[in-house]
Amino acid sequence: MPDRTVFFISDGTGITAETFGNAILAQFDFAPRRVRLPFVDTPDKAHQAVRQVNHTGELEGKRPIVFTTLVDREVLGIIQGGCKAMMLDMFGTFVAPIEQEVGITSHHRVGRFSDVSKSQAYHDRIEAINFSLAHDDGQSNRDLEGADVILIGVSRSGKTPTSLYLAMQHGLKAANYPLIPEDFERRQLPPALVPHKKKIFGLTIAPERLSEIRSERRPGSRYASIENCRMEISEAEAMMRRSGIRWLSTTTKSIEEIATTILQEVRPERLSY
Amino acid sequence: MPDRTVFFISDGTGITAETFGNAILAQFDFAPRRVRLPFVDTPDKAHQAVRQVNHTGELEGKRPIVFTTLVDREVLGIIQGGCKAMMLDMFGTFVAPIEQEVGITSHHRVGRFSDVSKSQAYHDRIEAINFSLAHDDGQSNRDLEGADVILIGVSRSGKTPTSLYLAMQHGLKAANYPLIPEDFERRQLPPALVPHKKKIFGLTIAPERLSEIRSERRPGSRYASIENCRMEISEAEAMMRRSGIRWLSTTTKSIEEIATTILQEVRPERLSY
Repeated sequence: MPDRTVFFISDGTGITAETFGNAILAQFDFAPRRVRLPFVDTPDKAHQAVRQVNHTGELEGKRPIVFTTLVDREVLGIIQGGCKAMMLDMFGTFVAPIEQEVGITSHHRVGRFSDVSKSQAYHDRIEAINFSLAHDDGQSNRDLEGADVILIGVSRSGKTPTSLYLAMQHGLKAANYPLIPEDFERRQLPPALVPHKKKIFGLTIAPERLSEIRSERRPGSRYASIENCRMEISEAEAMMRRSGIRWLSTTTKSIEEIATTILQEVRPERLSY
Repeated sequence: MPDRTVFFISDGTGITAETFGNAILAQFDFAPRRVRLPFVDTPDKAHQAVRQVNHTGELEGKRPIVFTTLVDREVLGIIQGGCKAMMLDMFGTFVAPIEQEVGITSHHRVGRFSDVSKSQAYHDRIEAINFSLAHDDGQSNRDLEGADVILIGVSRSGKTPTSLYLAMQHGLKAANYPLIPEDFERRQLPPALVPHKKKIFGLTIAPERLSEIRSERRPGSRYASIENCRMEISEAEAMMRRSGIRWLSTTTKSIEEIATTILQEVRPERLSY
């Protein structure tokens, strides 16, 4: 039972505060309760947040830890002045040294997401999501020229979540294509993919883990049996090796790690912009 | 043409460093080049990163700005000692004060994502993505009891990207359902949704913006015409109002903002854990 609460307070979504705060908390063997308070963008909401923080501290008998990414000085002032808490002002800490380094004053404007909905990058991201959905699981061979990357692998090796993540977070048009028994019999890549070899990336997975995952869907099936999983994985890896396709094992990796590796290998230019 | 480069250096994916660094840079009217260097987790890779940073600084004649989220002390030492750059050590800055506050020493272990692939949260997230895909665009009425949220709105109002984001980032089983002319004629919610009213959330959008978006797909069509978009939006909003459905306009909002608002309204418990 956690006896201390960590708050992430932001005038926007709070996603930045939460992501960064959680990465720091992961350095500790310590499992506090966590509360994200988004859209704290008026003095009223700031006072309300202060009351919530202080009430929590009183109940728990330990002062809360508060990560803030607040741009508006008035709101930040209310939070900093009012909270009986350990305050970690994430923007303030880094903004001042950068101001000095680059010789520019920060504008203290809220809302880095504002009107993002009209930007080209945002438009490309939505287009990429639509493309990846339309090209999930080999649904369409059309427009494969337009794909930034084509993922291949056996059923349930992680292709769909990875494609959608690449589209959502990086605006990459990511198609994915299953490797199926007929491909293994022909001992060749699916014909539609051959012209696009340079942008193919393979996903593989330990047969034991694959069998576990497939068993949740179809327990007791031949599809999920360890023998069949071993056979499919061995055939798929042999095919990728023969075809000179780059690949990685998803067994112990998160979607984020898989996606970052694919970017490095297939689209390194997407890591610098 | 940017004349200064900002590096995000991490022993993991670098996503945290990049997200946080970009949020800070957004406080400035300043458009540097940005480079993410992920998986810098050995002394060799650290030395290579140092060479890249210093080479860039020499070419540009201005010292780079380097955001680091590095846990390994040896790697961090090489980067900090070697880079002729402005160094912003994001973990170091906040870890020490928290150690003091909670009376626990941080473990300095790399890899917050390690073995995440076996965790329950990760499993739920993958399940949620599969659920949301299977329930995209009203494809299935099955298991709507299992949905955490059901988004409704006219075609191209933002339902699909929002559902996938809620699944991917928050592990929410998010179904989505289009509102179509037949619903407007009946002047009632689609019958399959009526039992689930509490978890329905509506998306609307300015007719002008909707017409723009639809015109990219089907230019000159009745579907994309401003008259038709006005009619559909007015009918959809009237229906949501009559049915007591909460809704928001996606016109100027990012997926992240829409998703955070939906969490606050429909699943506030997902913001504290």
